[in-house]
Amino acid sequence: MFDFNSRIELQNKSNDILAVGELLIDMISADYDDDFTCKTYNKFFGGSPSNIAMNAKKLGIRSLVASAVGKDGLGMFLINHLHNAGIDAGCVQAVDYATSMVLVTKSKNNPVPIFYREADYQLTYTKELEEAVLNSKILHFSCWAISKVPIRNTTEKMIEVARENGKLVCFDPNYHPMLWERGEDGVAYIKSIIRNVDIIKPSEDDAERLFGRDSHENQVKKFLELGANLVIMTLGKDGAIVSNETETLKFNTLATEVVDATGAGDAFWSGFYTALVKGYSIKEAILSGFAVSAYKLKYTGAVVDLPKLEEIKEMYGL
Amino acid sequence: MFDFNSRIELQNKSNDILAVGELLIDMISADYDDDFTCKTYNKFFGGSPSNIAMNAKKLGIRSLVASAVGKDGLGMFLINHLHNAGIDAGCVQAVDYATSMVLVTKSKNNPVPIFYREADYQLTYTKELEEAVLNSKILHFSCWAISKVPIRNTTEKMIEVARENGKLVCFDPNYHPMLWERGEDGVAYIKSIIRNVDIIKPSEDDAERLFGRDSHENQVKKFLELGANLVIMTLGKDGAIVSNETETLKFNTLATEVVDATGAGDAFWSGFYTALVKGYSIKEAILSGFAVSAYKLKYTGAVVDLPKLEEIKEMYGL
Repeated sequence: MFDFNSRIELQNKSNDILAVGELLIDMISADYDDDFTCKTYNKFFGGSPSNIAMNAKKLGIRSLVASAVGKDGLGMFLINHLHNAGIDAGCVQAVDYATSMVLVTKSKNNPVPIFYREADYQLTYTKELEEAVLNSKILHFSCWAISKVPIRNTTEKMIEVARENGKLVCFDPNYHPMLWERGEDGVAYIKSIIRNVDIIKPSEDDAERLFGRDSHENQVKKFLELGANLVIMTLGKDGAIVSNETETLKFNTLATEVVDATGAGDAFWSGFYTALVKGYSIKEAILSGFAVSAYKLKYTGAVVDLPKLEEIKEMYGL
Repeated sequence: MFDFNSRIELQNKSNDILAVGELLIDMISADYDDDFTCKTYNKFFGGSPSNIAMNAKKLGIRSLVASAVGKDGLGMFLINHLHNAGIDAGCVQAVDYATSMVLVTKSKNNPVPIFYREADYQLTYTKELEEAVLNSKILHFSCWAISKVPIRNTTEKMIEVARENGKLVCFDPNYHPMLWERGEDGVAYIKSIIRNVDIIKPSEDDAERLFGRDSHENQVKKFLELGANLVIMTLGKDGAIVSNETETLKFNTLATEVVDATGAGDAFWSGFYTALVKGYSIKEAILSGFAVSAYKLKYTGAVVDLPKLEEIKEMYGL
């Protein structure tokens, strides 16, 4: 279905990517500190789907974010941030819950994020969201959008409408047990939703959390068996293994310098989507994803000041 | 019952004050900013009952905090902070929820706090808590401890045991609608619990939130009619009006310089309790509360480096 040397035919719609999920505050410690004694934190625009929308806009395509923020100062800050980037915030709902936040205290060992989920999962299905799905080419979601109700119901409905109307549906299975509704089996749910997905991009760690340890080839096969049509499994510094069921390709990383890995996966998605929208082949789109990711890795922050895709492709000799 | 010129006979117990409620992170913007564009926030030990326990310890008496924090770095930071102040953290429960946080973006107008309540209201009634009540002279609580279950059930049980065993029960009715369980009438609940309270210290604003606008004398009367034995209504720069039903006294503020009002009410409680425990009369204890509050107002932060009560009393000529 997804031939590496062909382009994916996308619909002619007024918007390119609709990313549903978390729009939130990343509160990140100024210093590295394993004892949590550090005093200063810096606040950033955040949330993986929101970062993808921001990146895609910078790379040269159109994007929307479907999310819920609080009717508070932090929600206002996030909406203003979208406006300033030229992204319409019409699919951002303001609700009577605090704007969600992820607090990260940087650590040389293993930084453990603390999740404050309040507004983000209160997204409800509305006429505006339905129109946004119909007016878009691609629907993107990750685990936040399916880990709790009511946003899960909203996302399921959006996926259904997207599929009925021939949109490309893509999923980032960034599973984290702390995200999930207590008492529910997140792993089983994620496995069950893959049949509704065209393209999935797990990391090696995501695959292990879902299936346990296995060879890269076997892990990719499991995602295909569950119903994905294209599996892009990223392997950190070892690049990626990609399969469309009939063919499996390996890609090397294009990264030359790693200053900060935060947001590298979102940067990949952004480059990949931008290239697909611009009509490049799947293989070129994957390479574009790696180029944008490599560019992002040279700078600090989840969302960096990306040039247009063409410029980045040229830098990396694509 | 509470004669202003008499002391309150407290039991001979190993602990003085047991404060039940929130132990949490105050995340406060470094700068004043009405647009929420400021980037830097500083993290502090916080929660009104926890601040009172810290202050009381500094002033020279013994205190315990009954609260729940997350099994995360912020929870560890808070517990370490208690340990470093010489406060036993045996009544602090570590639970599978994020450590609660209040985010405040400073504003020249009206700073609106954003509440992230996760671990704090998960406090459950245990043998340790019961022993702490039995081994203490005073039980203190505020609205956080009664605004949501399960901590509300725990606090109700602690109040019951405290009353059955002749402890002094004191309540700070710092009502905020955003704290309360959705769909419940917080005002009605607060009114209903006052019959179980010996001493209540509302601010003028607290009284207005509970009863609407009225004269100071009438507001105080309403708290007495609901069952409190001593009402200390604070009036900001205008001091306080205090009544034990048979007699009503007015007090002027002792503050000479107001640098930061954060934590002034907690400072009052701490000075008041410390003086009661040290055997001063109720009137002297109220004056001690104002002296500690006045001292705190000269410095920035909710918990400042307080000297012993005797030193502060001397400074303010008590």
